[in-house]
Amino acid sequence: MTDYPMPRRRKAKWPVAVLGATGAVGQMFVRLLANHPWFEITELAASERSAGKKYGEVTRWLDGPLPPATILNRRVIACDPGVVSAPIVFSALDAPVALEVETAFESFRMEPDVPLVIPEVNGDHLALIACQRQHRGWKGAIVTNANCSATVAAVALAPLHQKFGLKQLFLSTMQAVSGAGYPGVPSLDILGNVIPYIADEEQKLERELLKLLGTYADGEVTSAAFKVSAHTNRVAVEHGHTICMTIGFEESPTPESAIETMKSWDGLASTVGLPTRATHPLVVSDAVDRPQPRRDVNAGNGMTVTVGRVRRDAVLDLRMVAVGHNTVRGAAGGSVLNAELLATTGALDSA
Amino acid sequence: MTDYPMPRRRKAKWPVAVLGATGAVGQMFVRLLANHPWFEITELAASERSAGKKYGEVTRWLDGPLPPATILNRRVIACDPGVVSAPIVFSALDAPVALEVETAFESFRMEPDVPLVIPEVNGDHLALIACQRQHRGWKGAIVTNANCSATVAAVALAPLHQKFGLKQLFLSTMQAVSGAGYPGVPSLDILGNVIPYIADEEQKLERELLKLLGTYADGEVTSAAFKVSAHTNRVAVEHGHTICMTIGFEESPTPESAIETMKSWDGLASTVGLPTRATHPLVVSDAVDRPQPRRDVNAGNGMTVTVGRVRRDAVLDLRMVAVGHNTVRGAAGGSVLNAELLATTGALDSA
Amino acid sequence: MTDYPMPRRRKAKWPVAVLGATGAVGQMFVRLLANHPWFEITELAASERSAGKKYGEVTRWLDGPLPPATILNRRVIACDPGVVSAPIVFSALDAPVALEVETAFESFRMEPDVPLVIPEVNGDHLALIACQRQHRGWKGAIVTNANCSATVAAVALAPLHQKFGLKQLFLSTMQAVSGAGYPGVPSLDILGNVIPYIADEEQKLERELLKLLGTYADGEVTSAAFKVSAHTNRVAVEHGHTICMTIGFEESPTPESAIETMKSWDGLASTVGLPTRATHPLVVSDAVDRPQPRRDVNAGNGMTVTVGRVRRDAVLDLRMVAVGHNTVRGAAGGSVLNAELLATTGALDSA
Amino acid sequence: MTDYPMPRRRKAKWPVAVLGATGAVGQMFVRLLANHPWFEITELAASERSAGKKYGEVTRWLDGPLPPATILNRRVIACDPGVVSAPIVFSALDAPVALEVETAFESFRMEPDVPLVIPEVNGDHLALIACQRQHRGWKGAIVTNANCSATVAAVALAPLHQKFGLKQLFLSTMQAVSGAGYPGVPSLDILGNVIPYIADEEQKLERELLKLLGTYADGEVTSAAFKVSAHTNRVAVEHGHTICMTIGFEESPTPESAIETMKSWDGLASTVGLPTRATHPLVVSDAVDRPQPRRDVNAGNGMTVTVGRVRRDAVLDLRMVAVGHNTVRGAAGGSVLNAELLATTGALDSA
Repeated sequence: MTDYPMPRRRKAKWPVAVLGATGAVGQMFVRLLANHPWFEITELAASERSAGKKYGEVTRWLDGPLPPATILNRRVIACDPGVVSAPIVFSALDAPVALEVETAFESFRMEPDVPLVIPEVNGDHLALIACQRQHRGWKGAIVTNANCSATVAAVALAPLHQKFGLKQLFLSTMQAVSGAGYPGVPSLDILGNVIPYIADEEQKLERELLKLLGTYADGEVTSAAFKVSAHTNRVAVEHGHTICMTIGFEESPTPESAIETMKSWDGLASTVGLPTRATHPLVVSDAVDRPQPRRDVNAGNGMTVTVGRVRRDAVLDLRMVAVGHNTVRGAAGGSVLNAELLATTGALDSA
Repeated sequence: MTDYPMPRRRKAKWPVAVLGATGAVGQMFVRLLANHPWFEITELAASERSAGKKYGEVTRWLDGPLPPATILNRRVIACDPGVVSAPIVFSALDAPVALEVETAFESFRMEPDVPLVIPEVNGDHLALIACQRQHRGWKGAIVTNANCSATVAAVALAPLHQKFGLKQLFLSTMQAVSGAGYPGVPSLDILGNVIPYIADEEQKLERELLKLLGTYADGEVTSAAFKVSAHTNRVAVEHGHTICMTIGFEESPTPESAIETMKSWDGLASTVGLPTRATHPLVVSDAVDRPQPRRDVNAGNGMTVTVGRVRRDAVLDLRMVAVGHNTVRGAAGGSVLNAELLATTGALDSA
Repeated sequence: MTDYPMPRRRKAKWPVAVLGATGAVGQMFVRLLANHPWFEITELAASERSAGKKYGEVTRWLDGPLPPATILNRRVIACDPGVVSAPIVFSALDAPVALEVETAFESFRMEPDVPLVIPEVNGDHLALIACQRQHRGWKGAIVTNANCSATVAAVALAPLHQKFGLKQLFLSTMQAVSGAGYPGVPSLDILGNVIPYIADEEQKLERELLKLLGTYADGEVTSAAFKVSAHTNRVAVEHGHTICMTIGFEESPTPESAIETMKSWDGLASTVGLPTRATHPLVVSDAVDRPQPRRDVNAGNGMTVTVGRVRRDAVLDLRMVAVGHNTVRGAAGGSVLNAELLATTGALDSA
Repeated sequence: MTDYPMPRRRKAKWPVAVLGATGAVGQMFVRLLANHPWFEITELAASERSAGKKYGEVTRWLDGPLPPATILNRRVIACDPGVVSAPIVFSALDAPVALEVETAFESFRMEPDVPLVIPEVNGDHLALIACQRQHRGWKGAIVTNANCSATVAAVALAPLHQKFGLKQLFLSTMQAVSGAGYPGVPSLDILGNVIPYIADEEQKLERELLKLLGTYADGEVTSAAFKVSAHTNRVAVEHGHTICMTIGFEESPTPESAIETMKSWDGLASTVGLPTRATHPLVVSDAVDRPQPRRDVNAGNGMTVTVGRVRRDAVLDLRMVAVGHNTVRGAAGGSVLNAELLATTGALDSA
C-alpha cells in the first residue's frame, strides 16, 4: 500500500460495489479489488436468487486462491439501484442483463455521453464523465467494461494509429471461452472444435474499436474513421483472446518502424504508476511463434497486451498478431484501472 | 464395386504404392485404398527403420477400425526408387523428406510441369502430366497432395472466382493438429492454446492457391493474379481446417448470389461419378454458427468442403468461413481422386 | 430392411415416441430410429417451450449428418402422458425431470418391478414387464436407459461374473461430457481439467451394476451380492466412458483365461441378429495402451464395449480397463435394443 | 532473501548445476533456482547438440515469464561428469537417459543407498547420503526427483499411514501431459482422449510409494509393507496429477478423524521455514467437487498437495482424491526442497 499512496490527500478508501459479483468477470473484480490500496468492496450485488446469502456460498470460484474471509462472508445484495449505496459501482453484468439493470444506473455503453475507456489509450475520454453527470444528474460514477476483443485490439493498434494513421483493418479473432462467462460455452460445443460465430461480437468489435481510437474534443468523442472488418471465433482456450490483424496505413511503416513504435509506446502519461497498470501495457515478442494465449495471457498480471509476428503484408502494409487477457485487460482490470485514473483526476473527490 | 466399373475396359486393378505409409496421412491413404474398386495396394513404403517389418507392427493406427489383415501383414519396403515397382505411387511424405526422396521419383510440387490438382476445381491441369512425362522421361505417375489449407480454400473459392473474379483475398486459418502429422504437435504446445504460426504455411497457402485457381493452356499453367494474404494458426482440433475469408471481387456479388453460385456449382463434369468424389464437393450451410470442424469435417466422407456465414463485408465485398478435412480432402482423398480422374483419361492405360 | 424382417409376422412398423427428443440423448434416439426397420417415430416430445414448433427448429443438432426432413419438420409435442399416444415410448429425459414426467408413465428405474436391462447381459429380466403391467395396469411399454457407466461396466464384467463369480470390485471412471447432456458441463469447468465428482453417480453405478448382474426368478430380480466401490470422474472427452477396474473373484482366473472367457462370450442368444446389436458386444484389445475413448468409442457402431490391459493384480486377482459409448451403448442404443428384444418376445404384439 | 538467511553461518551461495536444463522439468528447476536465496545456478547441462550455445537460444520456454538474462545468456554445457563442476547437481533427465548419464554421477534411484526423499514425509531418509558417500566415494550430492505420482500419493497418505497404518491401497491416476516431458505426448494422442497406460508407471508408483513411506534405521530404509495396486492414465491436463484412492487401514478411522489427521499434519519439523516449502504441504478441501488439477495445482506455489472427497468406502475404509503439481511438488520443487533440507543438516558444508 505504501507503494500506491491515496491520491489527492484522501484518507479513507473509496467504498465500491460490484454488480454481477458471482460470475466469471465478477470474480475477477473481486480478486483485483480484494487488496486494493484505494478501493474497498462494501457491496457485492448479484441476482435475486443469491441475495441475502454469503458470497462464498453462492459463488462457484473458478480460478486461483479463494478471496479473504471478509469477502466470502459478506452478504450478497440484489442488483437494485435503490439498494446499492457505494459511490463507485463496477459492473460485470452480461450485456442482456446489463441493459435492464444498468438502465437504472443510467449507463449505456454506446451512448455518446458514456466514455468507453482504456486509460493508456484514450484516458482523456473520461472527460465525458462531466457531461454525463450534468446530462443525467448522476453523482457517482459507473465504470463499464469495454468489449474484450476491442480492448485487446485497441491497445495493440493505438501507437500505430497515432503515428501512421490506420486506413484499413482486417481482424480475425480466436477468443477464449471465459469471454462468454459462466456457465457460458458448453463443453460439447467447444472440445476439439472451433465456433466461427459469437453473437453481435463482430459489430461490437468494429464499432467499439473505432470509438476507443476516436478523438475527444469539446464534450464529444468522434470515432476514428478507418475501415474495419472482423471475423470472430470461439476456440478451446480458457483465458486470452488472440487476434490476427492485417493493416493498411495512411503512411506505410516498415515492420521495423512499427515494432519500434510499439516498443517505445507507454500510453497516456497520467496512467503511469496507477496500482493496476502494467509496467508495459504493450510488449512486442521477437519469437517466431508468439504471442500465444496460454503462454502470454498473464503478462503484466494480465494487463499487458503482447504483439508478435509483425511482418510485411502482400496486399496491405502489415500483418501482426495480438494476445490479451479478456477478463483482466478486457474486462475487470480495465474497469479498475479506469476508476484509478478517475481517482487521480478529482472526479471522485466528492464520492 | 459394381457401382464403379473399371474405366476404359480395363480388367485388372492398378497396383499402387504408398510412400510414407505409416504416418498420419499414409494411414489415410491406406484406409481409402483398402477397398478401392480400381486400385490395389501392392507396396507400402516407409523409413529404413520400418523396412522389412509388417505394416501392422510398425504402424500406430491413429483412428477408426484397423485395415484388413492382408494389409496389416504386408512387409514394409524402404522409400527407394530402385525398390518401388508400382506404376502409381501415392506420397504421404512430409515436405522435407519428400524433397529428398521424391527427387528420385522426379516430382516437385511447384515445378511448372508438375500439376497441382483438385479434380473438381482444375482437373484440366492434369494435362501437364503429358509435358512432365515427355520432359523427364517418366512413365508412371506420381500424384502429390496439394497443401491442405490451400485445397480447402480453393474448393470454396473456385465457383466464386469463375463467376465474379477474385481481386483481393484475406485469409485467416485455424488448422487441425493432424495437419502436422504424427507425432507432430506436442500436447504441451496446443492444449488450451493457439499457435499463431505454422512454418512456411502462409507462403504455401498463398502460392498454391493461385496455382490451383490458375489457367491451363498450351502445356502451361498460369497462376491466378488476384492478391492474397494469409494468417495461419494451429488450434486444438483433431481434424478439419477452418478458414475465415474476406473477399474483394472484380464484379461484386450479393451474398445471395454468391450462395446461389456455390450451391449450384458441381465442379468439373468429368469428375462426377468417380469413386472417391463426394456427391456435393461444396455445401453451403444456412446455420448461423456453421461450419464447425468437429461437426462438418466428415461431410461427404471428408471430401466435401462446407461454407457458411456468407455475409456482406464492410470493407471489401464478402466474408465467409470454410471447413474441410485436411487429411482427406486436403491430402489422401484428394490424391486418390486425382488418380481416379487420371484413370478415366487414359493417362494410366499403359500402367 | 430386408436384413431384419419384422418379428412375429407383424406387417406394420411399431409407432414410437421419444421423450426429451431435443437433448443430447434424445438426438441419439432420433438418429438410431430414423431408418429403423421395425420402429417408426411418430411423436417427438420435449419441453413446453418447444411444443408446437418443428423439431429441426428447436434442436441444436450436436453431431453428424442431420436426420431426414420428415423428422426435422415434425411438430414437437409436450411431454404429457395425456398427449403421447404411441405404444412404445423411449425416454431421454434427465433424471430429475424424468422423475416428475415419467411418474405419469408409471416408470421408476429402481422400482422392483421395473427391469433394468442390457439385452446381451440380462435380457431375461424383461420378464419383469409382465409383473409391471399386471401390477400397474399399464398396457404399453416404457424402456428406460440404465446408467451409462453401469452399463459399460456390466457388459465387460458379465462373462467374468458368470464364470468366476465377482467378490470384490473397485472402479474408477473417466466419463465423457456428453454423459451430462447439453448444455451440460461448462467448458470453463473441464478444459484442461478433471472433475472428480459427478452427483449421485457413484451410488447409481454401484447399485445399478448389482441389479444388472443380478438374477431373475419368480417375478423378482435379486441383485448380485459382490462388494463394489467406485470413484467417478469427469474428463475432457466428448463421447466414451473409460473405466479402470480391479477385481477379486470367487474363483481366481488367470489373465489368459479371463481374456478367453470374454472373447468367447456372445451374450444372450436371443439377441443375436437384432437390428441394433453389435456383432460382438464385447471385444478384447491386445494393444498395450487400448482401449481409448476417442479411438474405440465407435466400435460396433457404438454398441461394442472394448476391454484391454487385462493383467494380474498385486492385491486382488485382475486389473483391466473398459471403454464404451455412453450415449449409444449406455443410453439410446441400449434402449432401442431393449425394445427390439421385447418385440421378438411377443410383449409388444398388442401394441 | 532476508527471509531465508543462509543456513549454518554460510556466507556464499552454493553453486549448483542443472542436468537436462532445457526440458520441461529442467525449465522448472531454472525457474525455482533463478532467485533462490541459498543456491546459484552456475552450470546448465543438456545434450551434446545444445552444448556451447546460449540457454535462451536452445530452450523453447514452455510457461510463464522468461528467466533473467544472466541465465538466458549462459552457455549450455554437455551432461558429462568430467565437465560439470558444481558440488550440487539437480537432475531433470528422463529416466532412460538418466540411467546412462547419471551412472557417471553414481546415482540410481532404487539402489538401497540412494535416498528417495520427500522432505516433509521422510526427510530422515537423507541420512542414507552418508552411507552413499562412504560406499561410493562421492563427495558432492546428487538429488534425484522421485516419481511424480508416487510423490503426490505419499504426501496425501503419510499422516494417515503414520496414525492408522495402511493395509490395502487401490490407486487410479489421471496424469498431466507435462509428466511426459517435452515434446512428450503427441496432441493427436490426447486431445479428447484418455490413454489408460503409461510405460512402467504403475510399477514405479507402487514400488516408490512403499519406499517413500518406509522406515529408516541403521543405515537402511525398509519399505512399507502394505499392499498397493495402481491404474495409471494420461489425460488432457497440462499440469497436475489427480489420484483416486481407496484405502484399507490397520485401524479404521472415520472420515472426520482422517480429515482432522491430515489437517493437523505439518510434516517433518525440520522442514518448516525452508525457502521452497509450502506453509501447508497438505490441504484438505471441503468442496464437494475438489480437488481439481486446473484449480488446485498451484496451491502453495505448486508445493501443496490438495485432498478432497474424503468419504467412507463400501468395501474398505476410506475413499479420497488427491491433486498435486507433477513438475513442481513431484519433480523440481521436491528436489530443491531436498537440497535445502540437506543444507540445514550440514551435509553440504564441505561443498
